[in-house]
Amino acid sequence: MKTLNELQTIILKAVDDLHYPTQPPDLYEPINYILSLGGKRLRPALLLMACDVFGGDVNKAIKASLAIEVFHNFTLMHDDIMDKAPLRRGKITVHERWNQNVAILAGDAMMVEANKLMLQVDDSILRPVMDIFNDTATGVCEGQQFDMSFESRDDVRADEYVNMIRLKTAVLLGGALKIGALIGGASQEDAALLYTFGEQLGIAFQLQDDILDVYGDPDKFGKQVGGDILSNKKTYLLIKALEMADEDNLSELNKWLSNAQPNPQEKVAAVTAIYNNIKVREVAEQAMQAYANEAFTALDAINIPEENKQYLHSFADSLLVREF
Amino acid sequence: MKTLNELQTIILKAVDDLHYPTQPPDLYEPINYILSLGGKRLRPALLLMACDVFGGDVNKAIKASLAIEVFHNFTLMHDDIMDKAPLRRGKITVHERWNQNVAILAGDAMMVEANKLMLQVDDSILRPVMDIFNDTATGVCEGQQFDMSFESRDDVRADEYVNMIRLKTAVLLGGALKIGALIGGASQEDAALLYTFGEQLGIAFQLQDDILDVYGDPDKFGKQVGGDILSNKKTYLLIKALEMADEDNLSELNKWLSNAQPNPQEKVAAVTAIYNNIKVREVAEQAMQAYANEAFTALDAINIPEENKQYLHSFADSLLVREF
Repeated sequence: MKTLNELQTIILKAVDDLHYPTQPPDLYEPINYILSLGGKRLRPALLLMACDVFGGDVNKAIKASLAIEVFHNFTLMHDDIMDKAPLRRGKITVHERWNQNVAILAGDAMMVEANKLMLQVDDSILRPVMDIFNDTATGVCEGQQFDMSFESRDDVRADEYVNMIRLKTAVLLGGALKIGALIGGASQEDAALLYTFGEQLGIAFQLQDDILDVYGDPDKFGKQVGGDILSNKKTYLLIKALEMADEDNLSELNKWLSNAQPNPQEKVAAVTAIYNNIKVREVAEQAMQAYANEAFTALDAINIPEENKQYLHSFADSLLVREF
Repeated sequence: MKTLNELQTIILKAVDDLHYPTQPPDLYEPINYILSLGGKRLRPALLLMACDVFGGDVNKAIKASLAIEVFHNFTLMHDDIMDKAPLRRGKITVHERWNQNVAILAGDAMMVEANKLMLQVDDSILRPVMDIFNDTATGVCEGQQFDMSFESRDDVRADEYVNMIRLKTAVLLGGALKIGALIGGASQEDAALLYTFGEQLGIAFQLQDDILDVYGDPDKFGKQVGGDILSNKKTYLLIKALEMADEDNLSELNKWLSNAQPNPQEKVAAVTAIYNNIKVREVAEQAMQAYANEAFTALDAINIPEENKQYLHSFADSLLVREF
């Protein structure tokens, strides 16, 4: 089994080796730019890891892992336009550095490039791999649209929220793992189990992100604690708090939500206190643990050596106990 | 051989039968909307026609023809954002009716749907068909970027312009024909010849469009004659005029190009007069004829019954002698 570091090194080299035409420059330079911004390359690493745990040759999975990475960066390029984000990984976003039209079109071209990379799998698994890839892509688009729609709704239910994060983030983790498994020679059944592992793990990971945003150690979390509270972001915590609060807590919470110019520190402290009153952290942690358990149940059922399961289990654990 | 009308009827029904999920509405309603706006469905009809002339069963080519139509409409949805176009086929554009983010994301989802439709071809031709489809998609993106880049350049050469229209428009005609040919059982060689036929015909068609914009019969052309002149659009005529004009004509032409608020009728009349002086219409018609000849030479070399060639030849003629 290759370590995560080894897999990430393989991917870094493969990304470096991607070469696009020079003309037209405004189509291909933004692609090279966003791919050079770095990141943990977690999704392509998961694909290689899945190939590895089934005893496959990870070298045969490199193009597919690049497809996942290029696809992921295409979605980031378009999401950044939609979110009007000025920065991505601390660097200026494509639509800001060039312009919005360039970012739309370069994103479109990246999606085509992702398809070309994914099509390089063996004939024997070409159709199932492309089906997974396309279903994943549809899910990501649906998740992003749900996420945008939720901004203007104040009646989002917890199950809708979980479905949104499942689509927006988790299906791509599942899809990457499933494709890697098929390249590694897994049966359809084992590949489907690994998909469930990735999908449920992804949901747990996103719920953890919501919890960390309120309760994380500022030194370890890497983001401003309370950022979600300040932006009234509809996280699992807020949705559950609105659902579970008694009259007093609900009225206090709504007061802070509708306060257009609150003192930031006061708002974070007050909303956190309400969350504490309602014990919404515990509810979120229980939900997170339930999704993690679903992930581990699927993992247990896969027909691979115990040590390979343990490897994936440890990797999942490392994702899920990050920065409290 | 089925007539163009019969093929268009098949496509209309198939487009009607496309059903997308209802959730999230802002992702799928725009897709249904743009596909309902009509249009001649020329590209999918070409794909079915290509299948037909090789003796294939057009019913087996319907999904692929829909893939081409969905892909084409995805590019229109994104192009309309980039061009800030208020109308498409006389109806309000998606980014105006919903908003820009919806149009970006629905376009992305359409590209995925196009891929899913195209993947439904037989295993035996899956890889070559997907390769053609992706190469075509890359070409369309490159063409759109060249087109946008040309707006801010005043040194665009005629060969660059022809390459741009080839990529932006003609490769999709070629790609549709080539995919249809493969579904119809054509050899790789014949399919490649049909691609060339479509590509060269597409270039000729676009050059004709440039000519018609100046010299077309307003009653038949369907667009405002002189529209390209009024917007200083870098057409083949303008590029050639700038290249071929003597000092007096060049100075007069540049005067009109830099006049920020000309009288529209005067400008159209004056620039047309300059074009006439330089005989740029004749140059454009010669170029158009040269590309049409390339198309017909490729067609002649295809190994199909003479009457099938004649059918495609007549179809091409009908496109190329439209509305003078």
